[in-house]
Amino acid sequence: MNTPSKITEFVGTAIGDTIGLVIANVDYFLHEKMGLDKKYRSIGIISSRIGAGPHIMAADEAVKATNTEVITIEMPRDTKGGAGHGSLIILAAEDVSDARRAVEVALKELDRTFGDVYVCDSGHLELSYTARASLASEKAFGAPLGKAFGIIASAPAGIGLVMADTAMKTANVELVTYASPGAGTAHTNEVIITITGDSDAVRQSVIAAREVGLSLLKTMGQEPQSLTKPYI
Amino acid sequence: MNTPSKITEFVGTAIGDTIGLVIANVDYFLHEKMGLDKKYRSIGIISSRIGAGPHIMAADEAVKATNTEVITIEMPRDTKGGAGHGSLIILAAEDVSDARRAVEVALKELDRTFGDVYVCDSGHLELSYTARASLASEKAFGAPLGKAFGIIASAPAGIGLVMADTAMKTANVELVTYASPGAGTAHTNEVIITITGDSDAVRQSVIAAREVGLSLLKTMGQEPQSLTKPYI
Amino acid sequence: MNTPSKITEFVGTAIGDTIGLVIANVDYFLHEKMGLDKKYRSIGIISSRIGAGPHIMAADEAVKATNTEVITIEMPRDTKGGAGHGSLIILAAEDVSDARRAVEVALKELDRTFGDVYVCDSGHLELSYTARASLASEKAFGAPLGKAFGIIASAPAGIGLVMADTAMKTANVELVTYASPGAGTAHTNEVIITITGDSDAVRQSVIAAREVGLSLLKTMGQEPQSLTKPYI
Repeated sequence: MNTPSKITEFVGTAIGDTIGLVIANVDYFLHEKMGLDKKYRSIGIISSRIGAGPHIMAADEAVKATNTEVITIEMPRDTKGGAGHGSLIILAAEDVSDARRAVEVALKELDRTFGDVYVCDSGHLELSYTARASLASEKAFGAPLGKAFGIIASAPAGIGLVMADTAMKTANVELVTYASPGAGTAHTNEVIITITGDSDAVRQSVIAAREVGLSLLKTMGQEPQSLTKPYI
Repeated sequence: MNTPSKITEFVGTAIGDTIGLVIANVDYFLHEKMGLDKKYRSIGIISSRIGAGPHIMAADEAVKATNTEVITIEMPRDTKGGAGHGSLIILAAEDVSDARRAVEVALKELDRTFGDVYVCDSGHLELSYTARASLASEKAFGAPLGKAFGIIASAPAGIGLVMADTAMKTANVELVTYASPGAGTAHTNEVIITITGDSDAVRQSVIAAREVGLSLLKTMGQEPQSLTKPYI
Repeated sequence: MNTPSKITEFVGTAIGDTIGLVIANVDYFLHEKMGLDKKYRSIGIISSRIGAGPHIMAADEAVKATNTEVITIEMPRDTKGGAGHGSLIILAAEDVSDARRAVEVALKELDRTFGDVYVCDSGHLELSYTARASLASEKAFGAPLGKAFGIIASAPAGIGLVMADTAMKTANVELVTYASPGAGTAHTNEVIITITGDSDAVRQSVIAAREVGLSLLKTMGQEPQSLTKPYI
């Protein structure tokens, strides 16, 4: 149903009401007002209504595969009336073809990274995992580069809190960040933790959190559905 | 339609997409990152997509009836696409059975405390009243313990402002807090005031605000409906 | 469908779930808690679920036409589940009839100022233009009084960013403000810029941004529709 665009800035669209864009040479005054580093004129943009974790994981793959950097990650309060975030990720490159390639890689990754997003009317689970965190996870959460890294988020926030507790008790993982409606989120109705450690431990913790979360979300009346295909 | 859960943390569900949970012994590192007082290991959780005032009033009753304390009250921007908050209330106890009992009491109170929440497509009124404020109202708004206390909220915010003015002019009550989209809310589209004073005065003020609010909300095209049964 | 109200504070309703209200003499304690200047007792209120730019432009016309001042402009995170703001604008006057007249003017302007708001399921464009900025635009964005002024906003935020870049490159305009999900908005999923300059240049920039924005929003799958009739 989506129509191609003749706009040169257009790269593509993806799940989560995501659009990928590039600007070859950002206007000087706009660039300055945005507070971007002067050395980057070409930017790639990944912008979505739904999802933040999956986009950060996709951006991680994009910077691994291309000659780009992650310069800003912002998370609006969105999800189209749901309880979570959307995302606005800006990548930078010296050459616009690198920025475009990075956005293409990210858009392609989203089908996979949305696999452990489960949604129902009462809330959602959003689970993300990578065996090797890269610059997007570092920028957004301070993830240690090259180490296994997981993001565990759920709404309503109370479910996210029980999932966080379960994750921490399941395996020997280190808690990197804790966010809740009052601090660290854009007032979403979520508890979000990020964890690092050995890849098996992180994966096991994320899976245990997912099982508890799915079971609790079901008590609220519906069966949460994966938006694509579980990958963790 | 709601399914029971085998998860030991599960307590129950209630109106407003509310879930009640307990954690018997919060993970040490999570506990620390949350900034909770070290003496509390057992917590009770009341988490909802819709409503904050009704949950705070319900938590007031829960702490009156049990050996628990209110340790944090956070209000996400939620209402499932509506104009207001949701809630995340954490109670603490030395013993998990106290935390569980407190959550049960709160869940049971919600049918009553949702009685003066009126909703229509254009907005809502959320009125709350107690003859004797307790620790949740104190934590959230600085309510004087043991005194009559009322919460008057409405969206769109302009209606809440006229209701606030009406409430103050109706009886001899004291204004405790004023919140608006830009300050004191999670950017909800509400004006929210809290008032204290003699119980008759507070009740009269809340009722007068409700009448004005219902009449104004009707001008926007629909008949606002109580979610359960008015109690004030 | 809207019912008239017998409440003296009621002025009228308009597009965008907007309600117009007045308070002849704001309660003393409420007035103080709101932090309003003591010399204003009469206030006019323009409150909406959807739209902020169109309301600020309408308030500009209201203060031009009446003896009133703009004292606060707040922007909740709203749009009824959409990606943007709502608005709460408070005007002040020494006499309530001036406040009422100002609100009436603003409500009447909204049909016009909503003309370049385009909405579809994936997002929106919100474009505003005036040949002569007045006190509301100054209050909200620091617009230079009496000069041409434009507001360019879109969701998802990435589309707003490309529109901003296009606007700046189209004509010789000055960038007044830049806002994004993380700063300058109430965590909306928008990039919003405001521009000033010669009236032809500002108009041309807004139009160029609109064309790019409409084309990009279409790639997400639907045809964005003007809520009334384009005026820029």
